[in-house]
Amino acid sequence: MTREECLARDRADPLAGLAARFAPGAEGTLYFDANSVGAMPIAAPAAMAAMLDEWRHLRRRGWSESDWLAAPRRLGDKLAPVIGAALGQVVVGDTTSVNLFKALAAALAMRPDRRKVVGEAATFPTDLYVAERLIAGLGGRELVLAPDGADPAALIDGDTAVLYLSHVDYRTARMHDLKALTARAQAAGALVIWDLSHSTGAVAIGLDAANADFAVGCGYKYLCGGPGAPAYIYAAHRHHDAIRPLLAGWMGHARTFDFPLAYEPAPGIGRFQVGTPAVLAHAVMETALDLWAGIDPHAAFAKHAALGDLIVTLANGIDGIGLASPSDARERGGFVALRHPNAASIVAALGAAGVVASHRPPDSIRFGLSPLYHRHVEVFDAIERLGRIMRDGAWRDPQFAKGSKI
Amino acid sequence: MTREECLARDRADPLAGLAARFAPGAEGTLYFDANSVGAMPIAAPAAMAAMLDEWRHLRRRGWSESDWLAAPRRLGDKLAPVIGAALGQVVVGDTTSVNLFKALAAALAMRPDRRKVVGEAATFPTDLYVAERLIAGLGGRELVLAPDGADPAALIDGDTAVLYLSHVDYRTARMHDLKALTARAQAAGALVIWDLSHSTGAVAIGLDAANADFAVGCGYKYLCGGPGAPAYIYAAHRHHDAIRPLLAGWMGHARTFDFPLAYEPAPGIGRFQVGTPAVLAHAVMETALDLWAGIDPHAAFAKHAALGDLIVTLANGIDGIGLASPSDARERGGFVALRHPNAASIVAALGAAGVVASHRPPDSIRFGLSPLYHRHVEVFDAIERLGRIMRDGAWRDPQFAKGSKI
Repeated sequence: MTREECLARDRADPLAGLAARFAPGAEGTLYFDANSVGAMPIAAPAAMAAMLDEWRHLRRRGWSESDWLAAPRRLGDKLAPVIGAALGQVVVGDTTSVNLFKALAAALAMRPDRRKVVGEAATFPTDLYVAERLIAGLGGRELVLAPDGADPAALIDGDTAVLYLSHVDYRTARMHDLKALTARAQAAGALVIWDLSHSTGAVAIGLDAANADFAVGCGYKYLCGGPGAPAYIYAAHRHHDAIRPLLAGWMGHARTFDFPLAYEPAPGIGRFQVGTPAVLAHAVMETALDLWAGIDPHAAFAKHAALGDLIVTLANGIDGIGLASPSDARERGGFVALRHPNAASIVAALGAAGVVASHRPPDSIRFGLSPLYHRHVEVFDAIERLGRIMRDGAWRDPQFAKGSKI
Repeated sequence: MTREECLARDRADPLAGLAARFAPGAEGTLYFDANSVGAMPIAAPAAMAAMLDEWRHLRRRGWSESDWLAAPRRLGDKLAPVIGAALGQVVVGDTTSVNLFKALAAALAMRPDRRKVVGEAATFPTDLYVAERLIAGLGGRELVLAPDGADPAALIDGDTAVLYLSHVDYRTARMHDLKALTARAQAAGALVIWDLSHSTGAVAIGLDAANADFAVGCGYKYLCGGPGAPAYIYAAHRHHDAIRPLLAGWMGHARTFDFPLAYEPAPGIGRFQVGTPAVLAHAVMETALDLWAGIDPHAAFAKHAALGDLIVTLANGIDGIGLASPSDARERGGFVALRHPNAASIVAALGAAGVVASHRPPDSIRFGLSPLYHRHVEVFDAIERLGRIMRDGAWRDPQFAKGSKI
């Protein structure tokens, strides 16, 4: 695969025009951090300026005269097609961790007579902390974790309340078969919660088609909502009436502005809202979700797979660099992880060479890919720089010894 | 009190210069909605633009090369003097409702053998929903509510785990004696949680001096952090080591970026952080908190009291308008509530006359006051417009019959 061939692919890419809808970064820098902070939609500054202007002149009237309060549901419906969900099942707001908590608490309450939450020991740490602390506080439940690499489904039994998984391994991008695991858990009478942070906006998920129960995901990675953007929560329509939130607030009430004293859950997914929406953050998030309008998500996901395959192919020729991710795109989430014992130093050296990637212990070098803005030639150039760093040993320079923890 | 006298007061006001640090609203409109959405700091758009620029060019490197992740603690320390707290006891983030949940869950875990949470039936509804649902989920506890107007302290006994109060009544601005109630609850062995949403940034609170346990508050009212701004949570130093969050996440971990599998709470107040901070929202919130630097909060609170007294005095002369708030500023929170059976229509008529106020059922007309940007002459003009509406009966116009629920 030559640089010319990559340029030819970009010329043939029907989604190539989308790159212009993102703001350019620093000149000469190649960003492969869609797994951490996606690029800024070029419409974001104007949308934010307009929202600041609403704040300035509408002030409290924004609650009624503008659409501030409708944003969590409206953005949820814009996101729904990207994750294969029918409308009315997603709200955007709070953080991924808070949404994990909401989903797990709701699911546990729906399986009062089952004791086990089955997960994986090597899932993303915040997922573990959420579950560990909630279970400790509720009592009478148990978190059962499959060792790294073992099949969590083997732990599911008739006492399993919830299967609680990250769709994609944050170290390797290895992706679970969401549909198959969902079916296995449901066959045992368990509910399933998926953390889709490393797949949303990158690969096909098909929540409804998988008969999913609950899911959450991150707004600032592949979705490009900005650092610390609102996250989201999904629940299947069939569960809505049964959900009794443990973490409830006025925005999830059926009649918020009547100020009733007794809690009454809002109809549908709205009951997962809690406090006042982060109006400014939602304004930017909406510009990111609007980029998906008119795009066939499956065309985007196919491009994402091709970009990932290109990394696999090109990196294959670099001495000392292994592949931490599956080579088959159907088993990969939003990034491709390469492997080297000195991954931290190599990522630091890549940074000095104008390639933004990331490291996760012990040995992974992650390249996060956006189907909306990445070009094949950028992949080529980034992996070429990696090859140069490996050939000339630049990563051994003491300045890179510390790496970067984040 | 004449308009000239108000202008003279403004000329003598040592804080008058601060008004210029807020962006002007619509020409001719008088905003008395600091109790709902405070004014925009004039520095906010530039701070947001700078943060968007960091997003655009730093991308994921912002986590390590910029100060994104330190914002919750840094902003907490900027807020601390405004609420009478020593540094290291406040974090900014999440919503008020979520922070109420964190505080109540933590406090209940610290009083495992006590059954009762004592509150007020007429507190702000979200506070009730948070407590009702958490208590229902945990089991073994009971929410005991003092009827509207009754003394909640009378319900405290040896079985009381938590006294759970809003500092200020959202309908009338009536303010509890925070220090006295804290002492009464603590004498019975209970912990106290204060919702300071309607006092923070308006009146003196003195959390440390009152030996407070836990508190939360809103960022978008008197603090002027923008609609849906991050809220805050306070816990006294002496409790930090004992807090075991029920709602835990990676940002509250002692060693987040080592990605350990086992939860270990961060030292100090940091353990109340959960998910990734809302970086964009924090950038704006910081411009609001920076306005307090170099200001003696007590001078600001004295000005706030004078503005409120001015409303009380001027409204006293309007036929049909009563006072819902205490006439003594020491018993009032951040707004002054007038009273009329047709409050909703009157608020709508005020809006048409260029005065932004708000209504709460059944009969309150609220004027939210900022000590930083309001001028005495604005109060004069607003109440003069109110007097005109009452004299000429403009509020009876059918167009105002619906009022505004929000």
